Amino acid sequence: MQKVNVGKKILSANAEFAMNNILLLAEHKVLCLNMISSPGSGKTTILTRTINELKDKIKIGVVEGDVQTDIDAERIRATKAPVVQINTDGACHLSAAQVNKALKNLPMDDLNLIFIENVGNLVCPSAFELGEAGKIVVLSVAEGDDKPAKYPSIFAKSKVLLINKIDLLSAGAQVDFDVERVKADARKLNKSIEIFLISAKSGEGMSDWYDWLIRSVEKNRQ
Amino acid sequence: MQKVNVGKKILSANAEFAMNNILLLAEHKVLCLNMISSPGSGKTTILTRTINELKDKIKIGVVEGDVQTDIDAERIRATKAPVVQINTDGACHLSAAQVNKALKNLPMDDLNLIFIENVGNLVCPSAFELGEAGKIVVLSVAEGDDKPAKYPSIFAKSKVLLINKIDLLSAGAQVDFDVERVKADARKLNKSIEIFLISAKSGEGMSDWYDWLIRSVEKNRQ
Repeated sequence: MQKVNVGKKILSANAEFAMNNILLLAEHKVLCLNMISSPGSGKTTILTRTINELKDKIKIGVVEGDVQTDIDAERIRATKAPVVQINTDGACHLSAAQVNKALKNLPMDDLNLIFIENVGNLVCPSAFELGEAGKIVVLSVAEGDDKPAKYPSIFAKSKVLLINKIDLLSAGAQVDFDVERVKADARKLNKSIEIFLISAKSGEGMSDWYDWLIRSVEKNRQ
Repeated sequence: MQKVNVGKKILSANAEFAMNNILLLAEHKVLCLNMISSPGSGKTTILTRTINELKDKIKIGVVEGDVQTDIDAERIRATKAPVVQINTDGACHLSAAQVNKALKNLPMDDLNLIFIENVGNLVCPSAFELGEAGKIVVLSVAEGDDKPAKYPSIFAKSKVLLINKIDLLSAGAQVDFDVERVKADARKLNKSIEIFLISAKSGEGMSDWYDWLIRSVEKNRQ
């Protein structure tokens, strides 16, 4: 009698697609970064500014994940970067299979870097590998400085932490946020995490993030 | 041969516990509200201020849901309100079974109102009924005004929308947020949703929310 191990097959389906994505990205020498945060941390604004500022240096494409609507994809499209929209229709994270389909609809030969903008959710997306080279977690200062302690998984797994909306910390601002606490808590979970303080709105602090991206893309093409 | 419909049983387990919770709450005439939002929208600050301001009028208890840590439960405990902590250990929402256990550890005979503070997540908790009388969705102005369109499920299902951190909209503030767009989008999904503009930090707008709570508790005790 033949035994079919259905349980194992289901469990590893995402991992198999993630492996396909790794191979596909390597074949085209494209760096892929999976951007994860709560709703409203500023992922799309970071992406549009980054694409516009780096358009002469890096060719960027975007896989745009949303529960509903194509509001974010429209914002990306305005930068002229190629973008593929995935609507999860209620699901709380992107799967590697969805990303595989999206990658195949991007002009990969013309790209150096693909951002996956995951569904706005600080919990679930951290558990699903998509075949990316690294995760980028975004935390807005308006969300409070206790988030690495309260949602440790994504901070433990990310290559980069972008602390966004630092313009709200300027003199006279009404947001309480202890940057040093966040840095210390994130580094307790993840010694090698790179941390950049940015305002995607004002542009403050973005140049260090751009330098990191340029270096990472360069390394990936070697 | 006996047929065991395992699929159905698993699917309805949460609904069965939710029904138990409804009966338990009705027996004690306790109103139960399930508070849902992204991480960092201000749920705990809303609760601590509400408990302190209403302590002579309503006896409030809290079921505190978190992925990790008891940071929020400690903040509630400082108000002297009874609180039971649930750590989901990575899971992205509370289940009715977890809430059932927590309710049994609260002094229900001494309470008029129990808030469930769900895990910070705008997607998953909206799909799990806990036996509550109503859901309260919180949206901070720092998260942006496109959230009802992008995450419709929780706005469609909630009794109340609290638009929090309106102090960040004051003159000279750097947050762009079209209150009328949010109201219109939320009401398109949910005609009867009550909307309050508040700052749990400054206290602005909180009195209408308190009045709604007092009326709702009164109605529930009749």
